[in-house]
Amino acid sequence: TGLVLVKNPHLDLMEEDVLYHLDLGTKTHNLPAMFGDIKFVCVGGSPNRMRAFAQFMQRELGLAAAGEEVADICAGSDRYAMYRAGPVLSISHGMGIPSISIMLHELIKLLHHAKCRDVTIIRIGTSGGLGIEAGSVVITDTAVDSSFKPRFEQVVLDDVVVRSTELDKDLAEELLACSRDIPDFPTLIGHTMCTYDFYEGQGRLDGALCSFSSEKKLEYLRRAYDAGVRNIEMESTAFAALCGLCGLKGESCRFHLL
Amino acid sequence: TGLVLVKNPHLDLMEEDVLYHLDLGTKTHNLPAMFGDIKFVCVGGSPNRMRAFAQFMQRELGLAAAGEEVADICAGSDRYAMYRAGPVLSISHGMGIPSISIMLHELIKLLHHAKCRDVTIIRIGTSGGLGIEAGSVVITDTAVDSSFKPRFEQVVLDDVVVRSTELDKDLAEELLACSRDIPDFPTLIGHTMCTYDFYEGQGRLDGALCSFSSEKKLEYLRRAYDAGVRNIEMESTAFAALCGLCGLKGESCRFHLL
Repeated sequence: TGLVLVKNPHLDLMEEDVLYHLDLGTKTHNLPAMFGDIKFVCVGGSPNRMRAFAQFMQRELGLAAAGEEVADICAGSDRYAMYRAGPVLSISHGMGIPSISIMLHELIKLLHHAKCRDVTIIRIGTSGGLGIEAGSVVITDTAVDSSFKPRFEQVVLDDVVVRSTELDKDLAEELLACSRDIPDFPTLIGHTMCTYDFYEGQGRLDGALCSFSSEKKLEYLRRAYDAGVRNIEMESTAFAALCGLCGLKGESCRFHLL
Repeated sequence: TGLVLVKNPHLDLMEEDVLYHLDLGTKTHNLPAMFGDIKFVCVGGSPNRMRAFAQFMQRELGLAAAGEEVADICAGSDRYAMYRAGPVLSISHGMGIPSISIMLHELIKLLHHAKCRDVTIIRIGTSGGLGIEAGSVVITDTAVDSSFKPRFEQVVLDDVVVRSTELDKDLAEELLACSRDIPDFPTLIGHTMCTYDFYEGQGRLDGALCSFSSEKKLEYLRRAYDAGVRNIEMESTAFAALCGLCGLKGESCRFHLL
C-alpha cells in the first residue's frame, strides 16, 4: 500500500524501461537508490523556477547554504529539468497538457520503479485569476474543462476516454491551513479551468487571432465564475486525471499573476 | 502583399503589445530593426537543437566561424529559445499543440510588428515513422488529426472552431527536390498525424497507463497508414492551421528517429 501504481500490463514484460524525456532508465540508473526516499514531488512549468524552488527547499530543510547550486538530474535532456532537495523532487513540465502528460507518464514510472511510498505531488505555478484579487493563491478542489465539467477527455487511438479530475480534498484543506501562517497571500479553494490554448482558448484579446467579441468573452467568463472557476491554466485536468489513476495524492496550487 | 497577417481587430487598439513568453515587446524593443529582414523561420521542439541549427546556418551562410556561440534573443524567458543566423530565425516551441500555439501566436505578432515580408516557416524535428525506413525524412503535405482528417479542431471559449491544415504544396516539392542532393536520407512526402498524447495517444505500450491491446494498436496504425499517414508527432495540425491563417508559407519536415 502507498505504492505508485502503473496501469499497463506490458510494462512488466519489458527488459528495460527508458524514460526518454527525462534521460533516465532502469538499466542505466539505479532508480530505487536515486529516488526511493522521495516523499514530495513539486512540478511547475518553468525550469528556472523549479531550480529556484529546489534551492529554496534546500535552505528551508537546512540542507545547503543559501545560493548553493543544485544539479539538474535530467541534464542530458533539455525537455525537462529535475532537481532534488532531501525528500522533495522539483520538476519542470513545460506548457500545456501534452507536455505535462509526457513528464507525468515518465515520473509515475520512475516513482514506481524506485518503489517510492506515500508520495504527495503538488503542482505550483502561475495562472490567470477570475474575479479574485491579484496575487491570490488558488488551491484547486476540482479541475474542470472549458465546459466547466470535472473531466479530462483524452483521445486514445480513435476512442475518447473520459477521466475524472478530482483532487485530494484533505490535502487541499491542509494547504489552506498552512496558508493561514502566511498573511501576505490571500488564499482560497476553488475550481481551476484548464484550456488547450492560451490566447483564444482563455478569451484573451491579444493573440494573433481573435475570433470572438469582447461581449462574448465577458459572458463566457461570467458563466465560468458562476460555475465556481477561480483561475485558468493549461495543465490541471491532465495532472488530476493521471495522478488520480496512479495513486498519487495530488493537489494544484496556482499563484494568480499580478 | 507578402506581409504577415494578424486576424485580431483588438491588436491595433493596444498601446503596447507584450510578447510575454518571448520576453519581447513593441515598447521595449525595436522589432522592425531587430527582425525586419527575416525571411525564414525554422522551429523545433528542443532549445539545444535549435541553437545547434542556428550555429549550423551561420557556418553554411559564412557568417561565423565554426563553434562560435549564438546569443539567445529570448534569454529573459525560459519558455522558448530564439537564435538568428542572417535572415534565418531559429526558435524552440516545446512539446505539444498548446506549447507551439503560444509560441506561434507571439511569433506571428512579432513578424507582423517587424513588417517582415514573404516569410517561409519550416518546422524541423523528430517524429515516429509509420511503415517507413528508420532515418527517413517526411515532408508533410497535409497534417491530419487522430481520425486522419485534415483539420485542427480548437475549443475557443465554448465553441469548437475547425481550421484547415493544408501546407504549402510547392514548398514541399521544393524541399523534396533539395533532398535529391543529399543521398544519405531517404525523403518522402506524406501525411503527418498529430496527437495530443505521446504514450496512449500514439499507441505506445510503454506509458504509465495503457488502456488498449496491442491488436487494437496494430489495427489502428494500419488504418492510419492506409489513410496516407507516414509519421506521427504532436504539433503539425496547430502549426499548419495558424501559419495558413496568417499568410505564412509553411512546411513541416520531420526526421524519423532510429
